[in-house]
Amino acid sequence: MMRLYDNLDSGNGYKCRLALNQLEIPFERIEIDISKGDSRSPDFLRINPNGRIPVLEYEPGAYLAESNAILFYLADGSPLLPGDRIGRAQLLQWMCFEQYSHEPNIATSRNWLLHFAIDDQRRTALESKREAGQAALDVMEGHLSGKRYFVGESYTIADIALYAYTHVAEEGGFTLEPYPNIREWLARVTAEPRHIPITHG
Amino acid sequence: MMRLYDNLDSGNGYKCRLALNQLEIPFERIEIDISKGDSRSPDFLRINPNGRIPVLEYEPGAYLAESNAILFYLADGSPLLPGDRIGRAQLLQWMCFEQYSHEPNIATSRNWLLHFAIDDQRRTALESKREAGQAALDVMEGHLSGKRYFVGESYTIADIALYAYTHVAEEGGFTLEPYPNIREWLARVTAEPRHIPITHG
Repeated sequence: MMRLYDNLDSGNGYKCRLALNQLEIPFERIEIDISKGDSRSPDFLRINPNGRIPVLEYEPGAYLAESNAILFYLADGSPLLPGDRIGRAQLLQWMCFEQYSHEPNIATSRNWLLHFAIDDQRRTALESKREAGQAALDVMEGHLSGKRYFVGESYTIADIALYAYTHVAEEGGFTLEPYPNIREWLARVTAEPRHIPITHG
Repeated sequence: MMRLYDNLDSGNGYKCRLALNQLEIPFERIEIDISKGDSRSPDFLRINPNGRIPVLEYEPGAYLAESNAILFYLADGSPLLPGDRIGRAQLLQWMCFEQYSHEPNIATSRNWLLHFAIDDQRRTALESKREAGQAALDVMEGHLSGKRYFVGESYTIADIALYAYTHVAEEGGFTLEPYPNIREWLARVTAEPRHIPITHG
């Protein structure tokens, strides 16, 4: 059985839990207490030298890190991953956008506001993350104009990757009120079969 | 003929130029002057609403953004991209690592040192980027122990993605002296057929 080294609070972990559930792949979830430094312990660094969850143990002793790489692995050959060359590339475009322009702003703001004291340095950084995060939401809102999903006509792992932190963006101090296309898309994703909430372990 | 909207100074652009050259795909290169804000102009935002180069016009009027998605598109079906499921996932793991843990530290430090005045705020940020960039280099050095390339036994787009900013890391204030495995791998990448330097337009 596959194992997911995970943290229940993490949107990156949630991407994998959600895909595993929707693909009906049985797995064992192992909670890693990031707040206690357990993702930087010598044992964990043998699993992922980069010291981050999630990690998928796809075969006993064989590990894959990076949430979007795990999504691609899990969905490869399923309807959650387009079978054509340009579809795959567009999917990766949105997953790269998520990791570079979205997650470092929206997820990091959420993490700080939920778990850290906000000193002056973090307050200044939050302001620039607010601006960059809104710019990412603007890009998403524009793309979703007239579209039901991010790539092609159906739900893919690009939607899972972008849903994970967008649907909890308000916990990061963002408001989704100015983004009707995003709000309709979020509702569409939530209505997909075998959807689970982020709190579902 | 494909078109690449590019900037000659950009390692992200270089990834695409290098892959196009090694795959012997003819293309027209269009230089975008980022310093003049040309990647944020209304015309450019119609090509990529996220306002970043590189962008590949793979068919007339059809655009693909994000350097690593472009690499995947170009290499799909070629020896630069593994044909098996786990190989593809490992390749994406390293490309996600590059965009999340490597590029924002090493490339951004290089960009600031080459092009911007270093005020107090940037000096503080540079210090934390130095630490995080060294941690990324440590992960690469460990992985390359006993390995010739990042994924499998041959040169792939994971090597291209990581080479782009690693080989100019010293311009970002990093020294590669403590990283013999990385230095040997850089030499191996440079010796690949049809290699071009970052300055080659």
